[in-house]
Amino acid sequence: MAAPDVKVIFFDVFGTVVDWRTSLLRLLADFGDREGIDADWPGFLAAWKAGYRPAMDAVISGARPYFNLDEMYLERMNQVIGDFGLEGLSEAQKQDILHLWLKIDPWPDAVDGLTRLARKYTLVTLSNGSFAWLTAIAKHGRLPFDAILTAENAQVYKPHPRAYLTAIELMGMKATPEHCMLTACHNYDLEAARSHGMKTAFLPRKEYGPDQDVDQAAESDWEVVATDLIGVAEAMGC
Amino acid sequence: MAAPDVKVIFFDVFGTVVDWRTSLLRLLADFGDREGIDADWPGFLAAWKAGYRPAMDAVISGARPYFNLDEMYLERMNQVIGDFGLEGLSEAQKQDILHLWLKIDPWPDAVDGLTRLARKYTLVTLSNGSFAWLTAIAKHGRLPFDAILTAENAQVYKPHPRAYLTAIELMGMKATPEHCMLTACHNYDLEAARSHGMKTAFLPRKEYGPDQDVDQAAESDWEVVATDLIGVAEAMGC
Repeated sequence: MAAPDVKVIFFDVFGTVVDWRTSLLRLLADFGDREGIDADWPGFLAAWKAGYRPAMDAVISGARPYFNLDEMYLERMNQVIGDFGLEGLSEAQKQDILHLWLKIDPWPDAVDGLTRLARKYTLVTLSNGSFAWLTAIAKHGRLPFDAILTAENAQVYKPHPRAYLTAIELMGMKATPEHCMLTACHNYDLEAARSHGMKTAFLPRKEYGPDQDVDQAAESDWEVVATDLIGVAEAMGC
Repeated sequence: MAAPDVKVIFFDVFGTVVDWRTSLLRLLADFGDREGIDADWPGFLAAWKAGYRPAMDAVISGARPYFNLDEMYLERMNQVIGDFGLEGLSEAQKQDILHLWLKIDPWPDAVDGLTRLARKYTLVTLSNGSFAWLTAIAKHGRLPFDAILTAENAQVYKPHPRAYLTAIELMGMKATPEHCMLTACHNYDLEAARSHGMKTAFLPRKEYGPDQDVDQAAESDWEVVATDLIGVAEAMGC
């Protein structure tokens, strides 16, 4: 199958490129050891992350003005720490936990896959994270992105149309969105991208752990379907 | 002298990091040879580039709504080609000339200086160019920037305050702009950056050619004054 004729490849990042859950389980356990705090860290992480979609949706619907993911995770942390006996955390400890997100690692295939793709295409993030966080995560993981773009550049979250259209326009592709592609492990994200004329690449990830069953298969005829980012590179002729 | 205590270093790009004039003189001569067009390319380049500041100023003053540098250079090309016997250029040839900007090379010290700085600091562009152009120029020159930001992200040109404040905010540094630094070969740019609380690094460049006499010396007590980007890296402890 011929590779789609694209110039710019956008990437969802949390889940698609970085394994946030495995990284954070380790980083939270390390934090607990360091600070002498015993807690149900996996339960805390699940509850903390569960605030993500409702907060995004409140911004997308207009119920709340845009606030970035850093602010969202701090707010959500304060909402859930009481359920895990962590209400005694100091403000400095909360900031330490918040900033563990900046140390999450890529999936094992990510650097290789992206490095191959970068030889032929322009690679740009398109994440719901904040601009500063994505810059830090890409630097930490030595991810060879050519530019960082996030929901913060559009002041609204995916899958709101403006998140995609802002990225397309900033990359100078407004007249030719079909030469852009989004790579993601979430079908809803690709559906939105396609509705704006972009090409699409899907790969399944177990970002929520081994029991995850959502988004384990392509739910549409995405132009590329692969098992990981090396597979995306191969499908793109790299 | 101790290095300023900063986390994020922003860089002006045209002049400061890339040698646009030498590159374009060569690229325009090559274009002329390839297309069989004999013209005063140095004169054309000077006239073309001379449209830069007035167009920026019209946006800054509010006389014109924001339009990006790609659009500005195409508009300006159409205004000056008649003066150089180039009115017969086809639209495709004009696009070819416009896109020579994407192939401009870094100064010889740039990759080394930035590579050293990137080990310790987060490096971000802060240019008046378009977002897409800066991404392409950084990729072409293998410049190790961690993120691209330009006037286009603020929809106004430097030295308008919003150009700097948008960059500071997107990097998550709104509360601590003193941990940001701008590196530039233009004193006016550093003056604006300092007025928003940023640190400043100056280096002189002969971006307009060997006869340039403006901006050959620091016009204030900038925190760092160096001869090139390797010198900036050394002053920053890299």
